[in-house]
Amino acid sequence: MSAVTSTRIVLASRPHGEPTVDNFRTETVELPDLSDGQVLLRTVCLSLDPYMRGRMSAAESYAEPVEVGDVMVGGAVAQVVQSRNPRVAAGSYVLAYSGWQTHAVVDGNAVRVLDPSLAPLSTALGVLGMPGFTAYSGLLKIGRPQEGETVVVAAAAGPVGSAVGQIAKIHSARAVGIAGGPDKCAYLRDELGFDAAIDHRSPDFADRLKAAVPDGIDVYFENVGGPVTAAVLPLLNLYARIPVCGLVSQYNVASTPEGPDRLPAFMGLVLTKSLTVRGFIQSEFVREMYADFERDASRWVADGRLKYREDVVHGLDNAPAAFLGMLHGKNFGKLVVRVGPDDG
Amino acid sequence: MSAVTSTRIVLASRPHGEPTVDNFRTETVELPDLSDGQVLLRTVCLSLDPYMRGRMSAAESYAEPVEVGDVMVGGAVAQVVQSRNPRVAAGSYVLAYSGWQTHAVVDGNAVRVLDPSLAPLSTALGVLGMPGFTAYSGLLKIGRPQEGETVVVAAAAGPVGSAVGQIAKIHSARAVGIAGGPDKCAYLRDELGFDAAIDHRSPDFADRLKAAVPDGIDVYFENVGGPVTAAVLPLLNLYARIPVCGLVSQYNVASTPEGPDRLPAFMGLVLTKSLTVRGFIQSEFVREMYADFERDASRWVADGRLKYREDVVHGLDNAPAAFLGMLHGKNFGKLVVRVGPDDG
Repeated sequence: MSAVTSTRIVLASRPHGEPTVDNFRTETVELPDLSDGQVLLRTVCLSLDPYMRGRMSAAESYAEPVEVGDVMVGGAVAQVVQSRNPRVAAGSYVLAYSGWQTHAVVDGNAVRVLDPSLAPLSTALGVLGMPGFTAYSGLLKIGRPQEGETVVVAAAAGPVGSAVGQIAKIHSARAVGIAGGPDKCAYLRDELGFDAAIDHRSPDFADRLKAAVPDGIDVYFENVGGPVTAAVLPLLNLYARIPVCGLVSQYNVASTPEGPDRLPAFMGLVLTKSLTVRGFIQSEFVREMYADFERDASRWVADGRLKYREDVVHGLDNAPAAFLGMLHGKNFGKLVVRVGPDDG
Repeated sequence: MSAVTSTRIVLASRPHGEPTVDNFRTETVELPDLSDGQVLLRTVCLSLDPYMRGRMSAAESYAEPVEVGDVMVGGAVAQVVQSRNPRVAAGSYVLAYSGWQTHAVVDGNAVRVLDPSLAPLSTALGVLGMPGFTAYSGLLKIGRPQEGETVVVAAAAGPVGSAVGQIAKIHSARAVGIAGGPDKCAYLRDELGFDAAIDHRSPDFADRLKAAVPDGIDVYFENVGGPVTAAVLPLLNLYARIPVCGLVSQYNVASTPEGPDRLPAFMGLVLTKSLTVRGFIQSEFVREMYADFERDASRWVADGRLKYREDVVHGLDNAPAAFLGMLHGKNFGKLVVRVGPDDG
């Protein structure tokens, strides 16, 4: 057969502060022939997630940065076009960390084979994938919500936040979501069953949040930082837990923020409230908790207790703009790029 | 018998920032007759500890503030002069939370009876008392040092810090102490067996600290805050633990510190290093760990593996000045005020 080509989006340059579409470039490359053990993938849908902002920068993070000129990283659902790995049959569907491209040659031992009869394929990128597991592991392992406690989560209409609130409810805690705009807040209350939802854009946001947590806050699932966190801190109870999952509001900040210096007061609060503040990446808990997550989350999705919403963008070319919008909360639900049809 | 009087030091006024001796006042009062269950105590020695600075302020803390005009709080070793409680015989020695005074009438059920044959009485205020248990519980429950890991502690020549480093050594970790001045550093290395000791007053403190932790820092036992913490943060390893026990460097800061705002960068570090930051007060762990502490610490003291040093000030009148000096690290060892003789 003639050589297969892949259209891919590479990091053209590192952003200084706010990224723009000029930090990305589209290329078409010829893929190499398969070696033993490898598979050729055709991307069906690509996941866009806030952590990718960190990969665009050279600053030390929990993972290697994407090099300038390299394809942007990301999880994807793909169909196997050709296989030289007995584990993975041609025609099957897999979850792969194959990035922003239409086709890829990868190690067949590094993909997870999906059963398309169990749930829509794209859920492997959201509620039944990394975002769902991030919510499950961070909330249950670090947040440890107890019956009747109050759990607050921001970016609550997103794939992680919506799962955090619903899993908190399943564990008999009160769930309070913070989101941007009345539509997202209505969705949290009316569709997902959050006990309260607060619009962080409302001018009296801090007062509304306070009114929504009459017994204080026992768990704050941190994935935004910034003014939302500032409003949460005075409401934390003794022994409150803060799983720190992300800080999307500060990913694009290029300069050191102006004063006053709030770190001493924060440490004072940690001391006087006996707070637990714990950063984490879901991969830390995979060995210990992933099997439990798969069992619980697939059952909850089937029961209708764990709902999800997708925001689907069509065409790989639209990935950069969709990604940049996500950093400002423009998506409503798990942001997925439809790169090709389910059946290729 | 004629009425017993007590000489006591009361809080005369709340400090704004740095406290002074004028915030204290000495009074002599007549004590009431004993009711059923009460005991009359004669103070032998009084403990001075950094947490007392917090009690002088009205700001929300983990405990009620001392009211203006009330006697300053504090732990003390005392002899029972008179008892109307069958639990506590006249003549026996007790640990009581009876405060800065020569005599006190307290509930006999709230004191701990001491065995003066086991260890010097004053150790109940230090290595075998609250400071020792603070070190033991915070280090072992939150810090969880593993064999070969590096534990850093500041105020390391003080009663908590010196126990932290020695207990870390007993658990096969490396202990690095930070203290003020060459005498204290020599004591940590030569007497207590710390692997390294760094003088935080040296102009190249941050470089020296870095050189002393070639494998990074796995546990930072936080009891000072300020510039020491700033030097520690860049050296923390993935999954490092920070038990937050005290912040003595910022207790006297009255105004909001100038910028830049270091909180966003700190939260970013928590995220990228998967840090655990956990405030605590030793009382949280008493039920779970105090019996283990008493068994372990008394054995370690008897074995010579857990050494201690006391800085004894004579006379209750000298307590305010000694307390103010302690907030600047002027004591060398557990600060104890000798109020009366062992045998009254």
